[in-house]
Amino acid sequence: MEKLNVIKVGGGVVENAASLSLLLEQFAQMPGRKVLVHGGGRLATSVAASLGIESRMVGGRRITDEEMLRVVTMVYGGLVNKNIVAGLQAKGVAAIGLTGADGDIIRSHRRPPKRVRMDNGTEQTVDFGFVGDVDKVDAGLLSQLIEAGRVPVIAPLTHDGRGNILNTNADTIASSVAIALAEHYDTTLTFCFEKAGVLRDADDDGSVIPLITEEQAAGLVRDGIISGGMIPKIENAFSAIRRGVGQVVITHSEDIGGHHGTMLKS
Amino acid sequence: MEKLNVIKVGGGVVENAASLSLLLEQFAQMPGRKVLVHGGGRLATSVAASLGIESRMVGGRRITDEEMLRVVTMVYGGLVNKNIVAGLQAKGVAAIGLTGADGDIIRSHRRPPKRVRMDNGTEQTVDFGFVGDVDKVDAGLLSQLIEAGRVPVIAPLTHDGRGNILNTNADTIASSVAIALAEHYDTTLTFCFEKAGVLRDADDDGSVIPLITEEQAAGLVRDGIISGGMIPKIENAFSAIRRGVGQVVITHSEDIGGHHGTMLKS
Repeated sequence: MEKLNVIKVGGGVVENAASLSLLLEQFAQMPGRKVLVHGGGRLATSVAASLGIESRMVGGRRITDEEMLRVVTMVYGGLVNKNIVAGLQAKGVAAIGLTGADGDIIRSHRRPPKRVRMDNGTEQTVDFGFVGDVDKVDAGLLSQLIEAGRVPVIAPLTHDGRGNILNTNADTIASSVAIALAEHYDTTLTFCFEKAGVLRDADDDGSVIPLITEEQAAGLVRDGIISGGMIPKIENAFSAIRRGVGQVVITHSEDIGGHHGTMLKS
Repeated sequence: MEKLNVIKVGGGVVENAASLSLLLEQFAQMPGRKVLVHGGGRLATSVAASLGIESRMVGGRRITDEEMLRVVTMVYGGLVNKNIVAGLQAKGVAAIGLTGADGDIIRSHRRPPKRVRMDNGTEQTVDFGFVGDVDKVDAGLLSQLIEAGRVPVIAPLTHDGRGNILNTNADTIASSVAIALAEHYDTTLTFCFEKAGVLRDADDDGSVIPLITEEQAAGLVRDGIISGGMIPKIENAFSAIRRGVGQVVITHSEDIGGHHGTMLKS
C-alpha cells in the first residue's frame, strides 16, 4: 500500500499571514501523497463581527444559524480554502480545493438538538443549527485525484444531499477522510495545533510524550496527565486507528511533518 | 466528437432564491456533458456594503482592491459556488465547484493599469486592482472530470501562479473554458442574461433574431440593431467561434437550454 498523509491544521494557523506562509512551505515540502484539511474558525468569527453578527459557541462548537452559515460558507469555502490553494499552487503543489459538497465527497446530516453540559455544570438542550455530523466519505474521487498527482485541500463544510451546506468540525472531517482513505492507503493522520504534542507537563513544551499506545493512553487519562480538551482528541485518534488509520500524530502547527510530536499507535 | 454545453449565468440569477432554483432545475435537466460558469457581482456588492466596503465600477468592471478581493473570494468562491454545487447535488448532478486556482485550471495575470473611456467621454488611466486577464485554461483536469461524469461549476476567480487570486470576468472565463474544451468536444457556449436574446427591437422580447452569422452581425451593427453592451458580447462570441467553439447562444436566464434565444454561427 502506498503511504498517504492527511494533515489537519486549525483556524489559528491560516488566519495569520506568517504562520500560513510557514504552513504552505512545510506542506509543499512533504513528499508523497497528501491531503490537507483546514479549519478557519477565528477568521469566521472576525468576518461575522465585521458583518455585525455575533458568534455564539457552546462547548467549543459554533452555533450556526442561517446568517452564520453564510459566513462560514464564504470564509471556509471561499477565503481560506482558495487562498491556501493559490498559495500551494505557487509552490508547485497541484492543490484542488474541495468542500464535502464538491463531488459529493462528504455527506452529513444536520445535528439534532442535543443535551450539552454547559460551562457552569448544568445541562441544556442546544440546537447547533446548520451543523453536520458526517455520514459518509466517498473515497473514490479523492483517491482518483490523489493518483492523478493532485492534492485535495478540504474545507470544514459538508452537505446533506438535499441542497444544504452544513458547518462541520474540521477534526471530524480529517478523521473521516483518513478512515475512508485508509482502505486505499497506509494512512497517517496528523493533527496540528498550538502545542508541541501530548505533554507530560502542560506548561513544558519540552515534555512531549513521543509515543502512546491505546493502553498507555488509558493510564495517562487515569493519572490526570491527559485531561480536558485532549481527552476527546485522543479518543478520536484511537477510534480512527481502530478503523484502519495506521497512526495518528498530534503535533505543533510549525511541525506539520510531525517529527517532534506525539505518535499514537495501536 | 461528443457534445458539450458550457453555460454562463450572471450574478443576477444566483442572488435570488427563486431564479436560482429555476436555474438549478433547468441545468439539472440538460442531458449530456456540461459545465456551468457563474457570476455573482450583485451579491458581492451587497456583502461588501454590509462590511462597509464601497463597490467602485468603471465601464461595468469592478475595481478590486485588497479588501474587495477578499469579498469576491468569499462570495464567488464560497457562498455562490458552494450553494450552487449543493443545490445541484440535491438534484442528482455530480457537481464539483472550482476556481481557476483549483487544479491550476485557469491561469491569469493581473491587468496592468489601462486607458479607459469614462461615462463622461474623457479618457483616464484606471488600475482595476486584483483583476485577472486569462492566459491559459488547462482542459486536462476539466475533461477528466467531465469524462468521469462530473459537472464542473466554475466561479469567476483565477490565479496568477504566484499565490494571488484574481477577480476575473465570468463571460471571459466561460469563453476561455469553451475554447479550451473545443479541442475535445463539439462545444456550445450559452450566455444567459436578462433578455431573450439578440432583439430586433430592444423593447420587444418577442423580436429575438434566431440565427446570426458573422457577416450578418456586421450588418446588424452597421444598421444600429446591435448596439451598446451587445457589441462586445457578439464580438466575444465570434472570437470564440473562430477559435473552435461550434456555436454560441445568447438567451434568457430562464431558458438555459437556449431553445428560444439567438444562435451565433460562422
